[in-house]
Amino acid sequence: MSAFRSHMHAALAEARAAAKRGEVPVGAVVTRGNAVIARAGNRMRELRDPTAHAEMLAIRAACATLGSERLTDCDLWVTLEPCPACAGAIAAARIGRLYYGAADPKSGGVAQGPRVFDHPQAHWKPEVYSGIAEDEAAQLLKVFFAARRDQDPR
Amino acid sequence: MSAFRSHMHAALAEARAAAKRGEVPVGAVVTRGNAVIARAGNRMRELRDPTAHAEMLAIRAACATLGSERLTDCDLWVTLEPCPACAGAIAAARIGRLYYGAADPKSGGVAQGPRVFDHPQAHWKPEVYSGIAEDEAAQLLKVFFAARRDQDPR
Repeated sequence: MSAFRSHMHAALAEARAAAKRGEVPVGAVVTRGNAVIARAGNRMRELRDPTAHAEMLAIRAACATLGSERLTDCDLWVTLEPCPACAGAIAAARIGRLYYGAADPKSGGVAQGPRVFDHPQAHWKPEVYSGIAEDEAAQLLKVFFAARRDQDPR
Repeated sequence: MSAFRSHMHAALAEARAAAKRGEVPVGAVVTRGNAVIARAGNRMRELRDPTAHAEMLAIRAACATLGSERLTDCDLWVTLEPCPACAGAIAAARIGRLYYGAADPKSGGVAQGPRVFDHPQAHWKPEVYSGIAEDEAAQLLKVFFAARRDQDPR
């Protein structure tokens, strides 16, 4: 499997693991060259922390691993378009390239709504590649929310 | 001193403490009713964490204190206009009211640039009150950056 596919594959595995914990299935990995240096899935419910999105946790873990506040030579792979909070964190961390899977018309902050990187206030704009394994990423979310509606039809 | 003034006063104290640690002087407190339930200053350099903004740390501490992912009946007081990452976190935490001091034309994400709360993707828009003790908040930043320029004139 190419590195390109395998990194998004690792992010999808994190998303599936998140779903098993009852979290919205989103996963992320941070890579440097071909090496995965951090990986995370959503943990907002488990940690009772509204900022514990997959991207945020992966960025913080990567910074801890490298002992650096900057991830300039790193890339982020995430199964869903980042929200404004995560897009802001990506800019703050100086992530080089952002690869994401499904678009998020409801909560996205990159290609719609606030379009966080498209303002001078961002200071940093990663290269952005979208639509990578988007069907699989979107399907995970669809199945998760359908099951949740069945369990709690309010 | 009114509660209104005293909460921003506490945020300014956190900003001054941040400056003493060599951090950009921004401070934040989370209140519920008249009680301060969390307070923090910037710790990005100390923690080597680009997401360790005052608001983000205060929100996470408040959630930990209350054991809740939601801060619906809480308010956030911060000395500087939040960046897009923090504005996204404020929306995710369902903060009721946001009170901030100085505007941040360079990095702000509330009243300029991405205007995170002004898009349907935000799902939550706090009441926003700006300009509270803004002169003192702006002066702290001005003194900090002037001293840094003197120390490192590159």
